[in-house]
Amino acid sequence: MAAKFLQVVDLEEAKRILEKHWCPVPRAALVPLDEAFGSVLAEDVASPIDVPPFDRAAYDGFAVRASDTFGADGGQPRNLKLAGKVMAGTWLKKKINRKECVEITTGAPMPRGADAVVMAENATVENGTVLVRRAVSPSENVSERGSDIKSGKIVATKGKILNIRDIGAIAAVGVGRVRVISKPKVAIISTGSEILEPGSKLKPAKIYDSNGFTLSQAVKSCGCEAVRLGIVADRPAAIRVILKKALDECDAVLISGGTSAGSGDIVPEIVGKIGKPGVIVHGLSLKPGKPTFIGVAGGKPIFGLPGYPVSALMVFDKLVAPYLSKMAGIEVRGQIKIQARLSGKIISARGRTELVPVKLEFGKGGLKTSPLLKGSGSIVSLTSADGYIEIPRQQELVEEGEVVEVKLFGEK
Amino acid sequence: MAAKFLQVVDLEEAKRILEKHWCPVPRAALVPLDEAFGSVLAEDVASPIDVPPFDRAAYDGFAVRASDTFGADGGQPRNLKLAGKVMAGTWLKKKINRKECVEITTGAPMPRGADAVVMAENATVENGTVLVRRAVSPSENVSERGSDIKSGKIVATKGKILNIRDIGAIAAVGVGRVRVISKPKVAIISTGSEILEPGSKLKPAKIYDSNGFTLSQAVKSCGCEAVRLGIVADRPAAIRVILKKALDECDAVLISGGTSAGSGDIVPEIVGKIGKPGVIVHGLSLKPGKPTFIGVAGGKPIFGLPGYPVSALMVFDKLVAPYLSKMAGIEVRGQIKIQARLSGKIISARGRTELVPVKLEFGKGGLKTSPLLKGSGSIVSLTSADGYIEIPRQQELVEEGEVVEVKLFGEK
Repeated sequence: MAAKFLQVVDLEEAKRILEKHWCPVPRAALVPLDEAFGSVLAEDVASPIDVPPFDRAAYDGFAVRASDTFGADGGQPRNLKLAGKVMAGTWLKKKINRKECVEITTGAPMPRGADAVVMAENATVENGTVLVRRAVSPSENVSERGSDIKSGKIVATKGKILNIRDIGAIAAVGVGRVRVISKPKVAIISTGSEILEPGSKLKPAKIYDSNGFTLSQAVKSCGCEAVRLGIVADRPAAIRVILKKALDECDAVLISGGTSAGSGDIVPEIVGKIGKPGVIVHGLSLKPGKPTFIGVAGGKPIFGLPGYPVSALMVFDKLVAPYLSKMAGIEVRGQIKIQARLSGKIISARGRTELVPVKLEFGKGGLKTSPLLKGSGSIVSLTSADGYIEIPRQQELVEEGEVVEVKLFGEK
Repeated sequence: MAAKFLQVVDLEEAKRILEKHWCPVPRAALVPLDEAFGSVLAEDVASPIDVPPFDRAAYDGFAVRASDTFGADGGQPRNLKLAGKVMAGTWLKKKINRKECVEITTGAPMPRGADAVVMAENATVENGTVLVRRAVSPSENVSERGSDIKSGKIVATKGKILNIRDIGAIAAVGVGRVRVISKPKVAIISTGSEILEPGSKLKPAKIYDSNGFTLSQAVKSCGCEAVRLGIVADRPAAIRVILKKALDECDAVLISGGTSAGSGDIVPEIVGKIGKPGVIVHGLSLKPGKPTFIGVAGGKPIFGLPGYPVSALMVFDKLVAPYLSKMAGIEVRGQIKIQARLSGKIISARGRTELVPVKLEFGKGGLKTSPLLKGSGSIVSLTSADGYIEIPRQQELVEEGEVVEVKLFGEK
């Protein structure tokens, strides 16, 4: 068994090899503003208008010529003729003449001739006359055209991940569609004749798929669209069909299970036949992750991940996630790393990098972390692991009590 | 103008009044596992099966009777007859007899009679005979049925917000649908005759809607579905129609603008006519937020928010968000609060709580925060504000250099 075995390379070398054949390139698309939240802006958005687009009342009250109110106070009000009313959303054709004013609501455009607003609480109306009890200066209580945003001003910058308030500002300048980095489509395939879809009846020798679900969510957390293509048995013809479909429809392919050098190992062979250059890396000096492969066909990358759920997530995190994030236009992917004190020592093999799933807990003396005992094949490990620690190639021992950096599993 | 003015109450009192008439109650629904990510689990998920569901090989190698290997080492291999092969996903009918073994792949079920696995690298095959060069003890390299999860064990607990790894565990125990708290539907209406939809042509006296967009995203960040019903002019008939539609289709209603006591103030009046008890709070001793109203009709809450974008977001955050989160089944809503040193003093009116939008910046001596000068009517404030600080009713001054708590705008 195990005909040609893996030629193991380290992670950085694997990435260099991949990047000779393929590079992640973001693509842009124009989308309605409703759908742009969380996307990466592909070009600056400049305001096509002044905001506000006209001089407007900042309060409810009376639009006046400021000079008509000079000297007004509680004892000596100035009397102005009430010449009409203007409400938000409407224009008043009339021009305000000396000793005239109009009632105005917040946000309504200032009528011609008027240059200030007397707030409602500083005036009273009696028989068509407005008694102004407080003088205003020119522009007082008026938001002037362009005072918030001048036409041409950039309100959201290329590369920005659009948040709620960016969306609000883009809406406020009247832009209804924006060019954003479109979500790359990533195919997810689970292989193995023993794998069943959850919700179906359990059969002898079978287990349920979980990588299809966890990898889908992991792909989404990198800003990509997950296309779960389901489960395929270890039959070359079936694998070939689903891989071709994945390469046709998606920008990248994740395939889990079926990558080890055991008898069931047929996926890398098929990748080699499906397109050039085929499999370019088979075997990483990473634990877990040794049987990982990387292929390129039709100008698209294919990542073969381990079948064990925790292993698949850790290798995804180290190898695949940075590429997917770049395709999604996210230059720096935020991964939360925290410091914790190790409970129990870890012995690691020299010569390969080891990723150890760990659990966090608050204890006496602060945050502690302990390695999971059940290993990366366990489903219990999957729910208990908060993240992982990375033990470098040359290190053989991490001592109990040492402070280590825990990389949290990346989730939005 | 301004006929009956507001009877201002403080925020806590407003909440007490609302809770006499309405309480947020989460509702559950059964959804496919693909759609359950980020939802709140409405009931415990127990494993209906043992995981693994059968004794299986933990490595590629040979399934043996451990007793047949006792004493084996490099110099003195034990010879066993190769009696077949079992691959993952298949059953072997044959029973393993003394001095027999079968080839086995990782994940394949142990054949009857065999009780351990010799790893591939510790054996060689020569003419139908397997030379075992390392003894194994019973159960060695075998994952026993139920060793990871026993049937009946809870794999995800009621109330949990389902993350990637929970979804993976639920999939692994074969559960394809889960009962989660269904996303409450929240209607969002922008009112004002001056308001236009972004993307349409600007007209005289009009401005573009932004609250419809920002409030939609804020609603989503509370775990609810946002139903944007668009813009309605200040005409009673039109407002009545859209409010009825909102109450018919949704679980709660947000309506922004049109709530002040100015001439354009007609929404609270209509709410009063549409259902009992109608408007129950009109006016908060909160700056901004004074013209906020709360109504209940048809057993559903209606929140009337200020028209200014930053004001609308802050009042949403203080008043509305905790209720929406509860409806979505999230008992404790995570809001990020951070400490920063205030640059510049703030003078606040006694007698009402004031929310001041602020911006954060790293400076000499750590994180600093400064109040935004343009005020809550400004769109520039919207993009620059990182959050807000809250000045209690009785406080009139916050000194420059004081350490304050900044509540960050809640976004996922």
